Amino acid sequence: MTSTVSAAPVSAAPLTGTDALNQLVDLVAADMLRVNETIIARMHSPVALIPQLAGHLVAAGGKRLRPMLTLAAADLCGYRGDDHVKLATCVEFIHTATLLHDDVVDESLLRRGQASANALFGNKPSVLVGDFLFSRAFELMVEPGNLKVLEILSRASRVIAEGEVQQLITANDIATTEASYLEVIQGKTAELFAAACQVGAEVAGKTGSPAKALHDYGMALGIAFQLVDDYLDYSANQEKLGKTVGDDFREGKITLPVILAVAQADEAERTFWARTMEALEQTDDDLPDAMRLMEKYGTLQATIDRARAYGDAAKASLDQFPDGPMKQSLIGIVDFCIERAY
Amino acid sequence: MTSTVSAAPVSAAPLTGTDALNQLVDLVAADMLRVNETIIARMHSPVALIPQLAGHLVAAGGKRLRPMLTLAAADLCGYRGDDHVKLATCVEFIHTATLLHDDVVDESLLRRGQASANALFGNKPSVLVGDFLFSRAFELMVEPGNLKVLEILSRASRVIAEGEVQQLITANDIATTEASYLEVIQGKTAELFAAACQVGAEVAGKTGSPAKALHDYGMALGIAFQLVDDYLDYSANQEKLGKTVGDDFREGKITLPVILAVAQADEAERTFWARTMEALEQTDDDLPDAMRLMEKYGTLQATIDRARAYGDAAKASLDQFPDGPMKQSLIGIVDFCIERAY
Repeated sequence: MTSTVSAAPVSAAPLTGTDALNQLVDLVAADMLRVNETIIARMHSPVALIPQLAGHLVAAGGKRLRPMLTLAAADLCGYRGDDHVKLATCVEFIHTATLLHDDVVDESLLRRGQASANALFGNKPSVLVGDFLFSRAFELMVEPGNLKVLEILSRASRVIAEGEVQQLITANDIATTEASYLEVIQGKTAELFAAACQVGAEVAGKTGSPAKALHDYGMALGIAFQLVDDYLDYSANQEKLGKTVGDDFREGKITLPVILAVAQADEAERTFWARTMEALEQTDDDLPDAMRLMEKYGTLQATIDRARAYGDAAKASLDQFPDGPMKQSLIGIVDFCIERAY
Repeated sequence: MTSTVSAAPVSAAPLTGTDALNQLVDLVAADMLRVNETIIARMHSPVALIPQLAGHLVAAGGKRLRPMLTLAAADLCGYRGDDHVKLATCVEFIHTATLLHDDVVDESLLRRGQASANALFGNKPSVLVGDFLFSRAFELMVEPGNLKVLEILSRASRVIAEGEVQQLITANDIATTEASYLEVIQGKTAELFAAACQVGAEVAGKTGSPAKALHDYGMALGIAFQLVDDYLDYSANQEKLGKTVGDDFREGKITLPVILAVAQADEAERTFWARTMEALEQTDDDLPDAMRLMEKYGTLQATIDRARAYGDAAKASLDQFPDGPMKQSLIGIVDFCIERAY
């Protein structure tokens, strides 16, 4: 039944992930311009250090995936108003505030390939400017006057904080289970993806089933996204993204590639993981050794496989929406998130 | 005209500040019990470290002045519903989150006479549990569904963050003006007092003039409160409160007693202030010397005088409300805040 012609990829093949990202970028370009203007306008403060520090992160850019999801979800639900621009800005502010507080917490030196805000400005301003952005997000999200949206985003912010604390607790504990790891990444990452998508539906008045479907799409996409991130931390591709390989290992952050390797470890390997990840006694040889163990048990591949399964679930969540370019690009974004691994 | 009998205080004298505090405590006792229950219930999280760390601060107690103001304002405006209990809890959560982030920021070792949360638990959990409490406050304040209240409290949170950043900028700068100092304390302290009082009026449906009056009361009270705090940092009474004398001096925090002394300083004194507060080159003799200079120019007394003036303004803001025990205790609270100085 399948064509006998296509052994090699042909131009009629479905969009690759990067094409899908570009398609989404094009589809929301006009709205995204307004989001960027709103970001600039609303991070303004008479206290000059605030836009200066926040601007450092905002200028560094990144893909702005989360606010794009809000815009796309609103469009998919037929929204024709203006409030989605404010809500997309809120989502980006909450994300940026989290990054600022995460930098304080992790003392990470690189973020998006640039020196982190706290390395440049110190911990104190990073905490407080994060608080500013977080408060500003709430101030902004009150403006549309949609209580359901407020409920969703305030709940998401709380769950993010819980996920971050849970991550602290499981750090350096090689007894961490896959279930506990999943809770952490749902909280710290996927919850905001889910909320970003859901508020797009809510602002369009599509409460109920469409809002639930977009929530589920964002949640599964967010989990897949973080699984790939945690895979990438042990991948040479990481360097292309301007990040160093093995940060998680050096911090003793227990992610799925490690959890699966510990689960299959023999006595000597278990001792290795306990020394390096729990006691944080590491030499230069340890990261390569850790990666060899992950290779031995195929845990990096297994991590990607799980990301694919969540990606499939994300796509399936969109079944109820009529086909069209926006739905296609949301499906393609799932592939984009997973293809970052390659 | 005045009685010739009373050289010594007699029992018919007006309430002292402490009596007024006790009166307020009695008047709101039933509601405050519910606030305390709500605090316990809403700081709960499946992530055990969160209630554990937040509970450390909550158990340490303090006077809970801010939530009491919300309850009192609601009562003064004739409110008979339940939402003021939630809003008072929000106000306390925002305040506690600020303390947690302030501890990270200032690396202060004592807070309410106990080891600070970040000294016990580390900076990382303090930032993140602060974020939890802050998010939880927003989650909780959405529940009554009053958009005006949401606008007031989200705006207040943003202004607090601006005030804290502004304080960082003016730290170690002896050119800081009294006007700039006032902006800082309005932001970091008085704004939450104002919002706490105003939402009490709003939840009672008393928008407009009563809400504005209670906002102004809280703002003036908050400024007076912080002026007294900054006075107390150089007062022996400070030790009774379980805090160390001269913390602000050692950190180079520029408060009014210093600003007024710098303004009147001769050449040698100016060099002293630049060395101790800007360069932070301090010896054991410097704090006593600084206090002698404040004494010389009467700047501690001048600070208290300004607190009194703001206290009078706070009392005058309540003119439109009918007399009664609640109004009397709100007037008395002003005296309580100022009498802490003695």
